[in-house]
Amino acid sequence: MNKSRLEPLGVPNSSYDFGSDFEQQARRKEPGPAARWLIRQLRSRLGESKVAVCLWDEPVDKDAIASVQFNDAGALWQTLMNPGLNFGDLYSAGRITLNGDLLAALDAGYQYVANNQPKNRLLAGAKASAKAIAPDLSESKRNIHHHYDLGNDFYKLWLDTDWMQYTCAYYPEAEMTIEQAQAAKMHHVARKLRLKPGERVVEAGGGWGGLSLFLAKHYGVKIRSFNISKEQINYSREWAKRESLDKLVEFVEDDFRNISGTYDAFVSVGMLEHVGPGNFDQMGHLMSRVLTAEGRGLIHSIGRDRPGRLNDWIDKRIFPGAHPPTLREMMDLFESSGFSVLDVENIRLHYAETLKDWLSRYEENVEAVRELFDEAFVRAWRFYLAGSITAFERGTLQLFQVVFTRSGMNQIPASRKHIYVDGDS
Amino acid sequence: MNKSRLEPLGVPNSSYDFGSDFEQQARRKEPGPAARWLIRQLRSRLGESKVAVCLWDEPVDKDAIASVQFNDAGALWQTLMNPGLNFGDLYSAGRITLNGDLLAALDAGYQYVANNQPKNRLLAGAKASAKAIAPDLSESKRNIHHHYDLGNDFYKLWLDTDWMQYTCAYYPEAEMTIEQAQAAKMHHVARKLRLKPGERVVEAGGGWGGLSLFLAKHYGVKIRSFNISKEQINYSREWAKRESLDKLVEFVEDDFRNISGTYDAFVSVGMLEHVGPGNFDQMGHLMSRVLTAEGRGLIHSIGRDRPGRLNDWIDKRIFPGAHPPTLREMMDLFESSGFSVLDVENIRLHYAETLKDWLSRYEENVEAVRELFDEAFVRAWRFYLAGSITAFERGTLQLFQVVFTRSGMNQIPASRKHIYVDGDS
Repeated sequence: MNKSRLEPLGVPNSSYDFGSDFEQQARRKEPGPAARWLIRQLRSRLGESKVAVCLWDEPVDKDAIASVQFNDAGALWQTLMNPGLNFGDLYSAGRITLNGDLLAALDAGYQYVANNQPKNRLLAGAKASAKAIAPDLSESKRNIHHHYDLGNDFYKLWLDTDWMQYTCAYYPEAEMTIEQAQAAKMHHVARKLRLKPGERVVEAGGGWGGLSLFLAKHYGVKIRSFNISKEQINYSREWAKRESLDKLVEFVEDDFRNISGTYDAFVSVGMLEHVGPGNFDQMGHLMSRVLTAEGRGLIHSIGRDRPGRLNDWIDKRIFPGAHPPTLREMMDLFESSGFSVLDVENIRLHYAETLKDWLSRYEENVEAVRELFDEAFVRAWRFYLAGSITAFERGTLQLFQVVFTRSGMNQIPASRKHIYVDGDS
Repeated sequence: MNKSRLEPLGVPNSSYDFGSDFEQQARRKEPGPAARWLIRQLRSRLGESKVAVCLWDEPVDKDAIASVQFNDAGALWQTLMNPGLNFGDLYSAGRITLNGDLLAALDAGYQYVANNQPKNRLLAGAKASAKAIAPDLSESKRNIHHHYDLGNDFYKLWLDTDWMQYTCAYYPEAEMTIEQAQAAKMHHVARKLRLKPGERVVEAGGGWGGLSLFLAKHYGVKIRSFNISKEQINYSREWAKRESLDKLVEFVEDDFRNISGTYDAFVSVGMLEHVGPGNFDQMGHLMSRVLTAEGRGLIHSIGRDRPGRLNDWIDKRIFPGAHPPTLREMMDLFESSGFSVLDVENIRLHYAETLKDWLSRYEENVEAVRELFDEAFVRAWRFYLAGSITAFERGTLQLFQVVFTRSGMNQIPASRKHIYVDGDS
């Protein structure tokens, strides 16, 4: 990427010591000898670090890039026991205060967890159980409702204003705004799919409908978009009417497993994470059933370099049941259902940029978020957005775009230049 | 691709009824009732086809695009029993005559085999045994000697004259010559790797040295190239001296498993097919050992959309021990050794074009091949080259280029535009 890694976050308030009243109630008594001993243990495990850790009665180190202050002994104990699961909750509850550069603090936390968790055991468990992750429709509905039905007003506070894209944007030029980068992402998808006016497209997991409306408007395709989030479907339908695109785009409140009809292209941006590897084979057969002989497909999904589970806290509080697959796991979509993979692009660092833009806008509108929910929610979502930046910058998470056609289909371009150069095909 | 599929082969002699003397000796007696019955069975299994099949006393159908004439009853029987294994040998031995469009005949044969083989059994066997394909060094040496040490003079008769590339070329423009397309392939590889002058590159499996010399000459890199074929190494060393590139390029007669040193880039074009999936994990760890922290790698290999073995005849006569892996199988190279896949491109149809150019040149120089070897050899290699065109056009075989770096390495370009547009990086 052109931007340097972990550059200072361009948000108006670079210190995150919010809500001192909120935190003060936790700081009721003097630290005892156990707390003093535990903080020494944590300091020795951290080693040399630009991020300081301290107890609630200790002064914050002014020279540190960031500091983590524990506001009660229990918070410190729970962090030592299971940082990946507990830190987010403790921060959200105000039992931990973060001062200074949030991203630097989370990056130090990331390194601490990476160095202190029993890697092999976790990995073996993840390998054995990935196939078992196969939520059925009712589970999927619960999981999706948990996250996406928080209210359209909430997401409007920090997503791009033009197309409400809650997926990785694409910044071919570093200085792009989030609006430009989301449009660039959608053009990138359309060019990879070589969409032509009048073609029929089906979308699996359409969010608030932005991608479908964009493709209909800019590429003249006819789209059916499937989504099981009622709030999103209602929003999409109204939006389509407002834009007079309701002749081209149909929003269907149903699971992708029930897609019917045949289409020239299949597109799914940011849904595969919620499907579960145990359902990939079934999804592959569905794609095969609904695509024409010359049909093209594109899957855009968060992924991983090696098998593993999502962070425990994210799984518990933010994205229940989500599983970012490895490329190997993704091959279940293609191998048994007769597809050929033409192109895989990993745009991991673009998700870090996207999240930085989201977090920046989130902080600009944080008062409005607090009014909609409460301080614990504000902190939980800040922690989630910032922690995700770290995950994409460190390479714990990837972002794969995979283009495919049927095996042996020969109507394919000789080069990928058409994605990058206007007028080339 | 811009060129149409299965276009008439642009070779001077489009009929392949060579060596009628060679074939005549097989036609010793009248066909009996068994042969008459067998040819009727074969015709009924073929159904409607533009390719005719006949016995040696029957007239060749002038309206057919191509015809397959069996010159003795045994040839017909063996073809019915195991066409994938026996057809190549029977054609090579002159016991089968092919008239007309060779590619059309092979394509019909391909379809016949695909429709008549017990697919599920073959597939299950291939899945279970792929990991077992792990030739050790002495097996690899035997396998490689079988194919690559046929004599440099032989390969010079039909490969590109500039760089002697015996791997898939790249035709971003359809009218390119094989020389232009091989140069384009090497530029494509270099651009994907973002090679800079002075960087250290290691090559695994270097053929006659063309790629190393090209990269040293055009990109100013220092290369060590490993190869276990003695003939190729000797040829490479002389070539390097002739070009005064022996200061930049070192040719090492050793297995890639013995690569030492550290490098900015790892490149392997057309070797993975010979490594065996059982050795991928080991190869991944080797790549991890020899690459710097910011190192990049590129693997270019024949592959498959789903697991399977090479055609039995190719395995027996042409490429013993070779196994084109699926993308899933290839992930063993990256997952356990800490790599992240950045880019996968499938350029399958470019291999069909490459093979057409090779076959065309092969036929131009067929007399010289016959002098070096004999008529059976001429026919075996014609069958191999033409059959491979069919395999890539039908999608039985793929050609994957995979670019990778270490997980979490962030010095990566924001887009792949630099591969396609000069001066963009």
